[in-house]
Amino acid sequence: MNNDKKLDILRHSCAHLLAMAVKKIFPSAKLAIGPAIENGFYYDFELPRSLTDEDLSLIEKTMKDLSKKNISFEKKSFSLQEAKNKLKNQPYKMELLEDIQDKKIDFYKTGDFIDLCRGPHVESTKEIKYFKLLFVAGAYWRGDSSKPMLQRIYGTCWQNKDDLMRYLKDLEESKKRDHKKLGQTLDLFSFHSEAAGMVFWHPKGKIVFDKLVNFSREKSKKFGYQEISTPNILDVNVWKTSGHWNHYKEAMFFVNSFKEKVDLGVRPMGCPGAIILYKTSVRSYKDLPIRYAEFDTITRNELSGTLHGLFRLRQFTQDDAHIFLREDQISEEISFLLKLVNEVYQTIGFRYKVKLSTRPSDYMGEIAVWNKAEDALKKALIENKINYEIKDGEGAFYGPKIDFDILDAMNRFWQCATIQLDFQMPEKFNLKYIDKKGKMVQPIIIHRVILGSIERFMGILLEHTNGKLPVWLSPIQVRILPVSDKHCSYAAEIVKELEKSKIRADFDFRSESVSKKIRDSELQKIPYIIVVGDKEVKNKNITIRDRSSKELKTFFVKDFIKDFACRNRMV
Amino acid sequence: MNNDKKLDILRHSCAHLLAMAVKKIFPSAKLAIGPAIENGFYYDFELPRSLTDEDLSLIEKTMKDLSKKNISFEKKSFSLQEAKNKLKNQPYKMELLEDIQDKKIDFYKTGDFIDLCRGPHVESTKEIKYFKLLFVAGAYWRGDSSKPMLQRIYGTCWQNKDDLMRYLKDLEESKKRDHKKLGQTLDLFSFHSEAAGMVFWHPKGKIVFDKLVNFSREKSKKFGYQEISTPNILDVNVWKTSGHWNHYKEAMFFVNSFKEKVDLGVRPMGCPGAIILYKTSVRSYKDLPIRYAEFDTITRNELSGTLHGLFRLRQFTQDDAHIFLREDQISEEISFLLKLVNEVYQTIGFRYKVKLSTRPSDYMGEIAVWNKAEDALKKALIENKINYEIKDGEGAFYGPKIDFDILDAMNRFWQCATIQLDFQMPEKFNLKYIDKKGKMVQPIIIHRVILGSIERFMGILLEHTNGKLPVWLSPIQVRILPVSDKHCSYAAEIVKELEKSKIRADFDFRSESVSKKIRDSELQKIPYIIVVGDKEVKNKNITIRDRSSKELKTFFVKDFIKDFACRNRMV
Repeated sequence: MNNDKKLDILRHSCAHLLAMAVKKIFPSAKLAIGPAIENGFYYDFELPRSLTDEDLSLIEKTMKDLSKKNISFEKKSFSLQEAKNKLKNQPYKMELLEDIQDKKIDFYKTGDFIDLCRGPHVESTKEIKYFKLLFVAGAYWRGDSSKPMLQRIYGTCWQNKDDLMRYLKDLEESKKRDHKKLGQTLDLFSFHSEAAGMVFWHPKGKIVFDKLVNFSREKSKKFGYQEISTPNILDVNVWKTSGHWNHYKEAMFFVNSFKEKVDLGVRPMGCPGAIILYKTSVRSYKDLPIRYAEFDTITRNELSGTLHGLFRLRQFTQDDAHIFLREDQISEEISFLLKLVNEVYQTIGFRYKVKLSTRPSDYMGEIAVWNKAEDALKKALIENKINYEIKDGEGAFYGPKIDFDILDAMNRFWQCATIQLDFQMPEKFNLKYIDKKGKMVQPIIIHRVILGSIERFMGILLEHTNGKLPVWLSPIQVRILPVSDKHCSYAAEIVKELEKSKIRADFDFRSESVSKKIRDSELQKIPYIIVVGDKEVKNKNITIRDRSSKELKTFFVKDFIKDFACRNRMV
Repeated sequence: MNNDKKLDILRHSCAHLLAMAVKKIFPSAKLAIGPAIENGFYYDFELPRSLTDEDLSLIEKTMKDLSKKNISFEKKSFSLQEAKNKLKNQPYKMELLEDIQDKKIDFYKTGDFIDLCRGPHVESTKEIKYFKLLFVAGAYWRGDSSKPMLQRIYGTCWQNKDDLMRYLKDLEESKKRDHKKLGQTLDLFSFHSEAAGMVFWHPKGKIVFDKLVNFSREKSKKFGYQEISTPNILDVNVWKTSGHWNHYKEAMFFVNSFKEKVDLGVRPMGCPGAIILYKTSVRSYKDLPIRYAEFDTITRNELSGTLHGLFRLRQFTQDDAHIFLREDQISEEISFLLKLVNEVYQTIGFRYKVKLSTRPSDYMGEIAVWNKAEDALKKALIENKINYEIKDGEGAFYGPKIDFDILDAMNRFWQCATIQLDFQMPEKFNLKYIDKKGKMVQPIIIHRVILGSIERFMGILLEHTNGKLPVWLSPIQVRILPVSDKHCSYAAEIVKELEKSKIRADFDFRSESVSKKIRDSELQKIPYIIVVGDKEVKNKNITIRDRSSKELKTFFVKDFIKDFACRNRMV
């Protein structure tokens, strides 16, 4: 068994330990579900009252006690009727029971606690040692806002003390680096009740956002993509053809009008626009692959309670692309994409891991096509010497995919890039190209994003760098601090000089002390600070303070510009 | 009386002549309204059947006959009861009558035809000589889709034959230059039933669109604007505060959801976003003017019947800006804006006329403020030596404005730029800044666009240039035509060389004759064509064919690049 699986079992067992403790303290507690998740676990409860921080401490202490008691996890199987009897006071478990088709229903018993559960679990509670409860949040039963709101207790759990401590330290650090706070401190963006889950970009944030978009745009162009733009509202029939109406309606916004009747849906993803464009022309096998990049707005109806800064928005922009290609082109195109993704992440400075997700049980299409496609993906990964994990059966129903998880400074993984093969959309929209023999053949679509949601990526990058964005992304790259009023005109001259070389510069002309101005510039995480006083005016030079080295260096402006360009290749 | 007024009277009289002729041919015709419009007039009728082209010819011939008969226009006044009797078979006129508050109701009589009308009119039908009926279109009574669809006959009318002939020639030319056809021929954009009134930008069109946006963006930056970006869907309460809910609801789209209840309106204009951003910080008199530029999507619920290519869309992008300023800054800021608008139009090559619209009868706010503001606008216009027309009483209810109408190659004026002072929004959203004395004072907002809707501007530009876009806007600037297959690798080398210098180049490697390739490139209106054959490969040079001069010139590639950069300053 690999270590990830072992950790999952440990964490799921820890969730049982949590439920045991809660039941001890609140005997009337109604239990919902308690799965393992990344870095830990949670359990949802209906409780007689809202939990306080003291409750959480008490629950954790009770868990420690139970752990020490060395209680074994025992699997018990019951008939449906016996199971119903056991769960008669647990309405949520009863509901779960309805979905179980097996003849024998599995439970796990630890001491006097018993829980409907398929397992597996650790042998005994004493194996669960290195854990901590983190916080409580509201969660609707089955994620459905029309159902009761439960209390979800989150916890973390590890195999040894070092891992737990490292995780808690990273967690502490990531809280300090909260991108929402950084967004405010650095004056990048704000959120307002007038548009929940949608970003108001302040001028500085807009610069960073545009730089990220242009960066992805230029990389795409270099790799042979053409950029298109399509409407962000489309007829409901399109969403019916694409399958979104049936499978995704709840996550969409629809449009109505006081005037003429309209039947429109706001775009939750970009595919149909690119597909309609593909169909504007008869395509030949020689035209493929056609690579359409698109940076338009995506809108999804996320529940207001789940919105979370730039990480979960209702409206965002993807560096989206759709590639229309022949079956025999898959391997080469994937290889090309792996190079593109690598180039993007390397430039920004993120390490990443790669996962290949294969045919799920509810797959659509022919097995032969799936096998060929999966082989082509593997071939490309191997040829590019990329280590990858296989996620068996975790592909989308419409095709296999490769996901990229980037690793941040707090050891958190974030799934960003994804490359998804799609055999279904071409079928649904009846896409064709003319092959060598003049026959009409169906192309394959690759959906891909690299940064993913640009907004979310910016959030990740802000926390990763603690706001010290790379120089090429910094909204202000250089700030000039005149020592006193009489140095202001010299400072203004330098700003002009720098701006001519496309360096984003400003100057702080407030009548404050230089040390106060330096402090403020540092809070703003500005990469270069230039102080100009009598000496600099006289010698016609500048003294630079570098954010990274904190060293002072004296330059002539034109030499600084050269040095700047060298160190900070404009991406 | 100025000539514009005279022309209006002539055209309105011509509309009466049209109605007379229609009544002669269709005695059961029900008459709606028949105003003068730019270049002509129209009249709306309910008729027993749809008009054919033959009907139109016959109606026009009948009008000519009536014109020759020298029938005088006579004003007649009646009491309300008498008026009702006269109009008893004319339901639309009866409806119009309900809105008239006067004691005496004016009619105009020409021969046995009489029409409810305030006038004035020409003396006699014989003055109406130079006219032509143009086409018939459907039009809802009172523009309301729940009301009957009428037939609207459009015509043009002028004071002399030359003017009429020139107008008809321009009209003919502008039909040939229809931007929708050009969009298709040049592969720039398309429209699809899946999203009526919204553009699908093909890769080439997206290049032109982005170049226009970036052009306006760079100009704004140069003039001290900061760019922001705000959500395109906002809470309905915002639209209630702004007044859009009461005055503009019909022209908006609203959003609903199958999940959580939402109360959101899709943005029909950008003001609230900029205003919410202004309010994120306490502003001082020293911070003003704050200039926010925004290039986000605007969505308006235009009736599907009124949609017209890029000229009337449901979704488009404005080069929008909002300036927050003090009252004492108006004149200087307007002066600054006049320079900006002039620089933009001069670079693109459009002449324009300027109109100042002053306080309307339904104005809001204080007369003193209006007067000061109007004086400030006039002062700026005079100081910048700009000829302007005064449109008395045509300002918006919230403030006076300056409009700019650009003149195209077919002598058509298009209102594009507008600079609007606004005293109302600051009041409604309770905007403040701290003045010198520490008092909270209300700023003024200037709304301005320069290109206006980028999409519409592109349509105008396409028709104006007949698709021969300026080189800096051409999606392909240089096309290389290899004489035969063996010259392809040399052609590809040149493309690479040009692309390095940011020249947009491609090559036509089809196995077609050179003359066919040249013809195709000309149809695509590509500015420069480079033919490479044995001679060029041998001499390592290129032969250029310039779209404008059609001259052939031989260059070394690096010299061509220099020449290109000189002639076509990258805007």
